[in-house]
Amino acid sequence: MAGILILGAGAMGSAFCFPAADAGHSVRLVGTHLDLEWIYSVRETGVHPKLKMKLPGQVLPFTHDQLSEALSPACDLIVLGVSSAGIPWAVEQLAPLISNTTPILLLTKGLQARDNTLQILPDSVRDGLAGHGVKNVPVAAVAGPCIASELAARRHTSVVVGSSEATLLGSIVPLLATPYYHVRPSTDVVGIEVCAALKNFYALAVGYPAGLLARQGKAGNGALMHNLAATLFAQALAEMTQAVSFLGGRQTSVMGLAGVGDLYVTCQAGRNSRMGCLLGSGLRYSDAKTNHMADETVEGAELAFVIGPTFDRLFRQGRLDPKAFPLATAIIDAICHDLPMEIPWAAFH
Amino acid sequence: MAGILILGAGAMGSAFCFPAADAGHSVRLVGTHLDLEWIYSVRETGVHPKLKMKLPGQVLPFTHDQLSEALSPACDLIVLGVSSAGIPWAVEQLAPLISNTTPILLLTKGLQARDNTLQILPDSVRDGLAGHGVKNVPVAAVAGPCIASELAARRHTSVVVGSSEATLLGSIVPLLATPYYHVRPSTDVVGIEVCAALKNFYALAVGYPAGLLARQGKAGNGALMHNLAATLFAQALAEMTQAVSFLGGRQTSVMGLAGVGDLYVTCQAGRNSRMGCLLGSGLRYSDAKTNHMADETVEGAELAFVIGPTFDRLFRQGRLDPKAFPLATAIIDAICHDLPMEIPWAAFH
Repeated sequence: MAGILILGAGAMGSAFCFPAADAGHSVRLVGTHLDLEWIYSVRETGVHPKLKMKLPGQVLPFTHDQLSEALSPACDLIVLGVSSAGIPWAVEQLAPLISNTTPILLLTKGLQARDNTLQILPDSVRDGLAGHGVKNVPVAAVAGPCIASELAARRHTSVVVGSSEATLLGSIVPLLATPYYHVRPSTDVVGIEVCAALKNFYALAVGYPAGLLARQGKAGNGALMHNLAATLFAQALAEMTQAVSFLGGRQTSVMGLAGVGDLYVTCQAGRNSRMGCLLGSGLRYSDAKTNHMADETVEGAELAFVIGPTFDRLFRQGRLDPKAFPLATAIIDAICHDLPMEIPWAAFH
Repeated sequence: MAGILILGAGAMGSAFCFPAADAGHSVRLVGTHLDLEWIYSVRETGVHPKLKMKLPGQVLPFTHDQLSEALSPACDLIVLGVSSAGIPWAVEQLAPLISNTTPILLLTKGLQARDNTLQILPDSVRDGLAGHGVKNVPVAAVAGPCIASELAARRHTSVVVGSSEATLLGSIVPLLATPYYHVRPSTDVVGIEVCAALKNFYALAVGYPAGLLARQGKAGNGALMHNLAATLFAQALAEMTQAVSFLGGRQTSVMGLAGVGDLYVTCQAGRNSRMGCLLGSGLRYSDAKTNHMADETVEGAELAFVIGPTFDRLFRQGRLDPKAFPLATAIIDAICHDLPMEIPWAAFH
């Protein structure tokens, strides 16, 4: 039995309590200041209101100001389940309290603009902690299809845990396996993390046809727009492959659970698809966000604001070929420049 | 303006009339003996009952016994839109009437068992015609996401036309492009055709979770089974990559429209998904087919009967590694041996 601390009590962090507890570990769930009500609810009734599930009995809930208490006795694994915007906060909170021997596992997905390129979050966390004097912390990340509510319902899924250090994988992967949470190791942490972030971004495009269909209506023969969605799905993967390769990851990761698997599930449900649908229905991003999804974090759109300016710079510097990213460009135009979203047919190849 | 003859007036063959006619060509649609009622309907009202659309005015309908008439004057392209089971019939009908200078374009998808391995249909057609004395006929094939009713409604899609001969591609591709039918060339005809066939087979597996969900019901928190479907989708692609590689195709085709694009669309709708759903609901194949889909051709199941014995032989000969095909094996067990379908978790890697 290991001690696992999960920081971030949103849907994903809290859902992770299930495999962690079912694998026989003691689990401490620490909410951020945004998760107060959920922690109170878990404390009082055991039920997480967003997951609509009672958490396993061995999960101990803590509020953000109890992080130090939750970390004693020291745990064997720290899991980060905060939002991508919450990463700097998490690093600041953890730095004074942890040693550089406790591994960190990221559930959070995203990319950060840095040094004229994009950095995966495990590197941001490691660099951030090092900046606070905690150097060389081993950091791994989870990618692959994993809708939180399904994980909490103990429904089957397969994921990938990635780290460039094989020994770290060897210690983390066996901790997490349960009969319904199937975990595979990958040494291509760059590849899986770029996929994990970009799938939210490209799901905006694959969601577009559903909105276009709502705007144009069913055809006289009842035909929908699955062909268009499939075209965009394939284009998204082609561009993800280019991006992964540019950032130093491997193409096989795009073909696997982290790439095609997670893009598939993200296109079946969720906020990114919904935003894409709103864009397809003819709304500008500003209108869709303000009037339809004001209180929701659309990770793919947040990411557009990160990668938009970076891609633009990389295009201008000739380091990245804009011809390889027509769909990304259309998404960036729609999100960052609030233009109507259009499918750039002529630029697909 | 070219003359295009389409043999096979089912949904796909007839839908192909739309881009062919909209690209400005004269189109002759020849039904098989199974398509008689549809040809009569097109003749009388212009409407194709299965597509629920009026065909373009310049489409001339012919019955199967008028093939010779339909081929005079000679046409510039013959399109085969029959079912995979209809290929030998089509070859027999065409052989006495065509020269070896008219290219043939296959819409039909499938694989044939031959010489202890699997053969793509363009090769079967070329060999079949050669057996009737018409040698070296140029044969190409279309792959990629293309639901017939959507094509007939002139909704956007992107497809790939494949042939090992670049000059053939150069003559066919420009004939077909319209503002909604986006055609790209590929010299990897083996890769795209193996994908085009296998996507039907693997869609049986990706459809499985919907049936399992119906059997087990929604979770208490409303969770569905998208994670499981995504896992199977990724596994399907991994196995398709192995099969394509074994049969001499290229991995890039699996990552493109013919592979991931067509598998995506096939998993969103259609008979293969529906059969998979019935298997997931707990029915044996024999029961599902006889009592729920008796009058429908389930191409993925038909293909299982072709590749099942061939894979089995290749496994025993050590030419193919069964460990690389756990999902295929589960599908073959369910279809060919009428066993309950199970997900072989332990064998996924």
